[in-house]
Amino acid sequence: MPKITTLEDAFVHELSDIYSAEKQLTKALPKLAKATTNPNLAAGFTTHLEETQGQIERIDQIVEELGIKLKRIKCLAMEGLVAEGQETIDEIEKGPVRDVMLIAGAQKVEHYEIASYGALIAVAKALGHKNAAKLLAETLAEEKATDTKLNGLAMSEVNQQALDAAADLTPAQ
Amino acid sequence: MPKITTLEDAFVHELSDIYSAEKQLTKALPKLAKATTNPNLAAGFTTHLEETQGQIERIDQIVEELGIKLKRIKCLAMEGLVAEGQETIDEIEKGPVRDVMLIAGAQKVEHYEIASYGALIAVAKALGHKNAAKLLAETLAEEKATDTKLNGLAMSEVNQQALDAAADLTPAQ
Repeated sequence: MPKITTLEDAFVHELSDIYSAEKQLTKALPKLAKATTNPNLAAGFTTHLEETQGQIERIDQIVEELGIKLKRIKCLAMEGLVAEGQETIDEIEKGPVRDVMLIAGAQKVEHYEIASYGALIAVAKALGHKNAAKLLAETLAEEKATDTKLNGLAMSEVNQQALDAAADLTPAQ
Repeated sequence: MPKITTLEDAFVHELSDIYSAEKQLTKALPKLAKATTNPNLAAGFTTHLEETQGQIERIDQIVEELGIKLKRIKCLAMEGLVAEGQETIDEIEKGPVRDVMLIAGAQKVEHYEIASYGALIAVAKALGHKNAAKLLAETLAEEKATDTKLNGLAMSEVNQQALDAAADLTPAQ
């Protein structure tokens, strides 16, 4: 017997998935903030932790307003993304090269969420869940802004710092 | 001893990761094409399989031009995304509700790749790998176009079909 037969079921499943993803992220973000030596990146992770907590509250509000019940599922993709972040911390010493990889990993997380919230908004609109669509759109805007900030940080300082760090390691000609 | 100490190492690692992701995707896309009843979506998956094969060839070209060696790693995030796609196929009967979920899953895959290629292009530019950055930008444009196409398909027909299918199941008042 399939568990998902209607668009409403699909909405609840996707919402349960992103809820699990956000919960996993609240545990990962403090580790990421500690793993960087770049104060701007550390501040970015800390700010995004606060945002993520607000995003979880928005999902709680949607669940309450619509009288739905989330499924207890684990988002496998976020599990993989968090595992890759841990690999970065385990394999690379603190410093700008690690920061490059932390930013790349964090942008993958943001894009997972951008895709997920984008799909959820479209489904919420089709179902006539107007306020849910509005709340999810607020979260989507935050995720996109975080991705843009991360990209700016990579382009404006972190990639160049990683390059300079490598040059310092190269013996003078 | 950390395996990644320079920005070049980070570039090779990220390139190896997306190479693994693309390889996993070439195995998943034919299954996705078979799993949908929507001819436009099936055609989209088949077209993207051809594009993905071209994207793998671009990575091969970069590897040859730069004389680098990719690491044999498995992209854990793509493993999670493919597992979620399989879950969709296992849990939902063929039809528009499954298609809604297949599209959402495919958009997550596209966004993983958008984030990955975006980071790779920034690092390639910082390293002065101009032709690599150009080739990666061609792939990034394809991934973005695929995401846009998937979104259009959800908004223009699939979400509504899923809603109509549910209405058909509801007894008349």
